[in-house]
Amino acid sequence: MQHDQRFVLRIPHRPGALASVADAIGQEGGVIGEIVTPRLGRDWSLREITVEATSGEQLDRIGDRLAALPGVRLLDRRDPVLEVHLKGKIGIEVRSPVNRPSDLRFVYTPGVAHVCRRIEADPDASWDLTWRGRTVAIVTNGTRVLGLGDIGPRASLPVMEGKAALYRRFAGLNAVPLVLDAPDPDTFVETVTRLSPGFGAVHIEDVRIPDCFEVLERLGAGLEVPVMHDDRTGTGVAALSALLTVFRRMRSRVETCSVGVIGLGAAGTGIAELALASGIGRVMVADRDPAAVERLARRGGEPSDIDRILAEADAVVAVTGRPGLIPPHRVRKGQIVFALSNPVPEIEPQEALGAGAAFAADGRVVNNALAFPGLMRAALLTRSRAFSPGMAVAAARALSACCDDDDDAVVPDPFDLKVHRAVTEAVAGAALAEGLARRPLPQAEVAALEDLAATACAWT
Amino acid sequence: MQHDQRFVLRIPHRPGALASVADAIGQEGGVIGEIVTPRLGRDWSLREITVEATSGEQLDRIGDRLAALPGVRLLDRRDPVLEVHLKGKIGIEVRSPVNRPSDLRFVYTPGVAHVCRRIEADPDASWDLTWRGRTVAIVTNGTRVLGLGDIGPRASLPVMEGKAALYRRFAGLNAVPLVLDAPDPDTFVETVTRLSPGFGAVHIEDVRIPDCFEVLERLGAGLEVPVMHDDRTGTGVAALSALLTVFRRMRSRVETCSVGVIGLGAAGTGIAELALASGIGRVMVADRDPAAVERLARRGGEPSDIDRILAEADAVVAVTGRPGLIPPHRVRKGQIVFALSNPVPEIEPQEALGAGAAFAADGRVVNNALAFPGLMRAALLTRSRAFSPGMAVAAARALSACCDDDDDAVVPDPFDLKVHRAVTEAVAGAALAEGLARRPLPQAEVAALEDLAATACAWT
Repeated sequence: MQHDQRFVLRIPHRPGALASVADAIGQEGGVIGEIVTPRLGRDWSLREITVEATSGEQLDRIGDRLAALPGVRLLDRRDPVLEVHLKGKIGIEVRSPVNRPSDLRFVYTPGVAHVCRRIEADPDASWDLTWRGRTVAIVTNGTRVLGLGDIGPRASLPVMEGKAALYRRFAGLNAVPLVLDAPDPDTFVETVTRLSPGFGAVHIEDVRIPDCFEVLERLGAGLEVPVMHDDRTGTGVAALSALLTVFRRMRSRVETCSVGVIGLGAAGTGIAELALASGIGRVMVADRDPAAVERLARRGGEPSDIDRILAEADAVVAVTGRPGLIPPHRVRKGQIVFALSNPVPEIEPQEALGAGAAFAADGRVVNNALAFPGLMRAALLTRSRAFSPGMAVAAARALSACCDDDDDAVVPDPFDLKVHRAVTEAVAGAALAEGLARRPLPQAEVAALEDLAATACAWT
Repeated sequence: MQHDQRFVLRIPHRPGALASVADAIGQEGGVIGEIVTPRLGRDWSLREITVEATSGEQLDRIGDRLAALPGVRLLDRRDPVLEVHLKGKIGIEVRSPVNRPSDLRFVYTPGVAHVCRRIEADPDASWDLTWRGRTVAIVTNGTRVLGLGDIGPRASLPVMEGKAALYRRFAGLNAVPLVLDAPDPDTFVETVTRLSPGFGAVHIEDVRIPDCFEVLERLGAGLEVPVMHDDRTGTGVAALSALLTVFRRMRSRVETCSVGVIGLGAAGTGIAELALASGIGRVMVADRDPAAVERLARRGGEPSDIDRILAEADAVVAVTGRPGLIPPHRVRKGQIVFALSNPVPEIEPQEALGAGAAFAADGRVVNNALAFPGLMRAALLTRSRAFSPGMAVAAARALSACCDDDDDAVVPDPFDLKVHRAVTEAVAGAALAEGLARRPLPQAEVAALEDLAATACAWT
């Protein structure tokens, strides 16, 4: 597991001093991240150096080595992950003035009664007169969180807060983390249904398989607002966009390409279903669970197995959670290999490339944060009734179009707000074309949300 | 019903011009609120004048009259209530830096997994490592909203957003509005229980009687976090504080005073139970529902009726929703009369004073916004297991102590953050003394939340 630490050092301020510090960290196998210099004396400097390591013991060795360097004082070791989590990563802000008694008359009683009555008479007025038109419920029961498994609702809250922070930072949206003590599909669907009136959309996160398939289907059919399972659709969009970019760079038409997806959990299912929806010529699917294979076969997927996929597919996408599943000698020359399991992939990209792969990537290439902000913003702003595969494919194509072919990156930079705007516009266009959107994308509202995104962390 | 309008006028910039505008508004019975001057020309000024009226027709008459004034141009009429509600009164903000890829490693994956594991091992770590230690769920089913009745969950959202805005503005807390499609006590209790893991406390709002009594009792017993019904306890605290202030100014010892509460809905019950808990010598209670009377009789309330209360109580508190219930000739000389029903009280204060009352007030004297922010902040920061009547009485005494006896106001200014700090400290002290608090009030955290409160609307 990845460990990060921030070493606070006082070091001599002369040529070579930082190099010797960096060398000591590198010698112990640590990877240096940010280096910040909060203070600078005449002949010393205070440095905060963030280091990635693979264990606490490794960090201890790095610390010992740094402390032993001549002229260097190790002042502190801090945990940057715990620091950013203290008191929570998100909060509730006020967006209307509440500074004097007259303001209370408008935001609270007696004025608020008019607004309630208006919504009572026309529930759709709540889109404009409350926060729900910009607000997503992020719901989980914590039954399958990251690679950690069933850790329960409370322990999953930091993940949901993280997602909420990204919704605001990348799309200007409000997302409310709701961690539910509702471990089975019936109680989960029931609870989300009951709390849905206050939200414009629902984002399902980290629900175990196969429950996640059932709850998405039931909530999607039962709620009047769009529902997305990010582990499935967000991951599917991000992976498909990378595939499309690689195909384009190899000058392959998707209709003639074959993709094999190994492992049909939420992510694999999302990737395979969007590959099918995107018009990729042949989509092979493999899983130890026949029900998972059958689910995709109904949509046109070709039931297959790992051997056949490795032997025949132009692109192999593995999402199995099984480290080292793909032996290098099975990789075909010119094959595309996405081994996406975290933290250890089915095959390391450099191994796949060494075995002749034309392109290889691990889970870092698939960043949901590129997908869900724009997908949700489009669905909310067009007041779409649902999410469709077509909307997701439009998102993947927009992301792929954001990748310059002179660059070697297959996914764009999530901090570039133009990327999320491109996704928003493409998804809104698809929603309109499919008759799912209640209205076209309001450009002024996109701009307003982009302002909120751009200023989300302006204080840092 | 109260109507507010903002008239946008271009008027001559010379002595007497604004007076003639103000006169026209007054002639038609409008009450002037704020006057803002967004632009000033050489011989004219642009004025935005907010006017309170009692009907839309009255506003039309005012508009016509203003438009007819010589030299005055009526440029626009705006609804200030709708304006502050557009797109919602609250939002989600990001409180940890998310500005570069390395930040994502800390607030999201892979770093977040460490935090999840830590909370899985020790659920109490969630108090510090997520937002729940500062976060309240505001839950309603919309079955009894303001004076509007059962308008349902979605139409009640503006009220909950308003409460959330006040939580941030007055106490620096996060409050999340959750409007639940859960109209009966069983589904309401079940739903709130299932969503409670992500919150540090629960605020119940606008649930109909008698359901509100049942759900508070069941949630209070079932959840591990404190639960408050604001219509009951918040109103009780605000009303009791005003009573205590009046008694003090009349130099009456509470032990020797008698209070009669007419109307035992949520508010009346809260006032009566806190009057009992505060040591007021005699608390008479009256309601048409024998169950409501019995509920308070079990706690020491004296079953009574309106005639007897008017004849014997030093202070009469009416919360019946019945305009004009108290005929002026029944008011006794020297009596204290709180006629709290909105929008029309049981007796107008000036009528009661004319009939000889020593003090009279209507619903405007009872402002829950003085109570709930500090009550919740104390409960959250001391990690109290529950709310007690003692904590509420401590809040009322603290509020009363904030009222200077040289002033004629019986409640302090909610915009004065020192008031909410005084409530927080008093309530925390009571929680500690009663063994309900898990720790003393952390002063640094109070200060941090006060900073968040002070800067909540700094952009206006």
